[in-house]
Amino acid sequence: MSLVVVGSIAFDAVKSPFGERERMLGGAAVHFSLAASFFCDVRVVGPVGDDFGQDEYAVLHGRGVNTDDIEHVAGGETFFWKAHYEFDMNLAHTEDTRLGVFGEFEPKLSDASKSSETLFLANIQPDVQRGVREQSGAGLVGLDSMNLWIETARDSLLETIAGVDLVLLNDAEVRMLTEQPNMLLAARAIMDMGPSAVVAKQGEYGAALFTREGYFAVPAFPLETVMDPTGAGDSFAGGLLGYLASQDDWTDDATLRRGMTYGSVLASFNVQEFGTERVARLTREEIDERFEAFRAMTALEAAPD
Amino acid sequence: MSLVVVGSIAFDAVKSPFGERERMLGGAAVHFSLAASFFCDVRVVGPVGDDFGQDEYAVLHGRGVNTDDIEHVAGGETFFWKAHYEFDMNLAHTEDTRLGVFGEFEPKLSDASKSSETLFLANIQPDVQRGVREQSGAGLVGLDSMNLWIETARDSLLETIAGVDLVLLNDAEVRMLTEQPNMLLAARAIMDMGPSAVVAKQGEYGAALFTREGYFAVPAFPLETVMDPTGAGDSFAGGLLGYLASQDDWTDDATLRRGMTYGSVLASFNVQEFGTERVARLTREEIDERFEAFRAMTALEAAPD
Repeated sequence: MSLVVVGSIAFDAVKSPFGERERMLGGAAVHFSLAASFFCDVRVVGPVGDDFGQDEYAVLHGRGVNTDDIEHVAGGETFFWKAHYEFDMNLAHTEDTRLGVFGEFEPKLSDASKSSETLFLANIQPDVQRGVREQSGAGLVGLDSMNLWIETARDSLLETIAGVDLVLLNDAEVRMLTEQPNMLLAARAIMDMGPSAVVAKQGEYGAALFTREGYFAVPAFPLETVMDPTGAGDSFAGGLLGYLASQDDWTDDATLRRGMTYGSVLASFNVQEFGTERVARLTREEIDERFEAFRAMTALEAAPD
Repeated sequence: MSLVVVGSIAFDAVKSPFGERERMLGGAAVHFSLAASFFCDVRVVGPVGDDFGQDEYAVLHGRGVNTDDIEHVAGGETFFWKAHYEFDMNLAHTEDTRLGVFGEFEPKLSDASKSSETLFLANIQPDVQRGVREQSGAGLVGLDSMNLWIETARDSLLETIAGVDLVLLNDAEVRMLTEQPNMLLAARAIMDMGPSAVVAKQGEYGAALFTREGYFAVPAFPLETVMDPTGAGDSFAGGLLGYLASQDDWTDDATLRRGMTYGSVLASFNVQEFGTERVARLTREEIDERFEAFRAMTALEAAPD
């Protein structure tokens, strides 16, 4: 089973109360593909500039991610993002954004990418997402977006959402998109547009899954140290979509619940160190152990008669 | 098994996007005792004024709550609170607070209350809570508090917490009290003061339980309509403490998890209508059904080999 992710590849400068990195590999498509790589074959599609070199490719290749569809734009600079976190790690304070080659990104899928069974549209301008979706023959298409596009490209985003199967958004974005404060009704409003599943990301509280048949909630893993939350949402999406891509029927309820939990597992490892550092050296055994810890953490016995 | 709750008995005026009540029975001790009444014998201790009459007693008696220790202050007025909610139901906008007889409340426990096995100190000034705790021989003592006391009576609150077994606070209050942004470390800091369990209430995200041995998270029940969130936290506490009071060993992990879930069940019914309206006519069968719905909602099967 193979999965294609289209999105940003970046250099990040991040400072948190626990340390600092001046320039490290980042970007939604990078975090996503590293997380998904534990479950299926992953191809990453995104643009890079002349500053993107062997060290960066080595991180992706180290996890077996196929980088043939990374587009090298000669003379360009890779997307750069600088931010800091204070003790409230739910909020990133952006200091600088230089889109570089990402600003002119017009993704063209290779034949291999077009025929991939699963596609993830990481957060990009929704016209671009829709253009990619139309090139793909995938049976499962997931999408992430953000408040910026809800505010500035709402109609395009709604049209794009109508063509995908699974939508991931922060819970505030779910409400903003639908103008519905009640989460259950807001998620249903998105499903009425076309998707059969909506995942509301809740930051430190975990995530909730809404389908036409039901509801599932997974908490975040309680950690003593959250060093850098950058990429948590993308790692979550990578764990979820990667697992779903590896299964015969992604719409099966038990499968979706496991996928949500793998998403939470990958996000929890991601935030324990800076950037891709922890996930890059993660093992499948560590993932399975933490999956079991999640099961134990949420297990509830029936009340005795 | 019997349980005593000490706290406010009130009249509330509440307006939400879904309706309005100009004067209805409320108060932490009322919401708590109605919720707890499904699991054990409950005595409620709190002051009322001349305006508190047979209609109000009838609600409590309707659920079998013992009101012998309600203190009627002749010539006084019952605590009155007026607030409204906007679409973000996590925040109550207080318009008026008239403490009335609650301002001079100096609770004295009756002999029956002193010998009760379980005691809950609802949100009151921490000196008053400690005075009650010292009169009681209970084996399980729970406590709620609020940001006001953390800011204005911090040392007294810390001393009071040292003498109880289970602390319930909003997660922001857990952080504020301990000056520790990480929830896991913050909860441990509270347990280092004495309590063996900390419950962090998370509003629409549910609640988390921290003990020395482990962690448990329960989501809130997804509802199409939240009509009036007033008393959700107190109903949660009532469901939790009421269930724990009914069991032989409240420190048992499976028991605590069930208690957390019953707490979430009672809170979910509480918010579906105004004030005490829904819980007052709730049945044990409805509680058991929703408990099972919670089990189904969070159930996670192991990954196949």
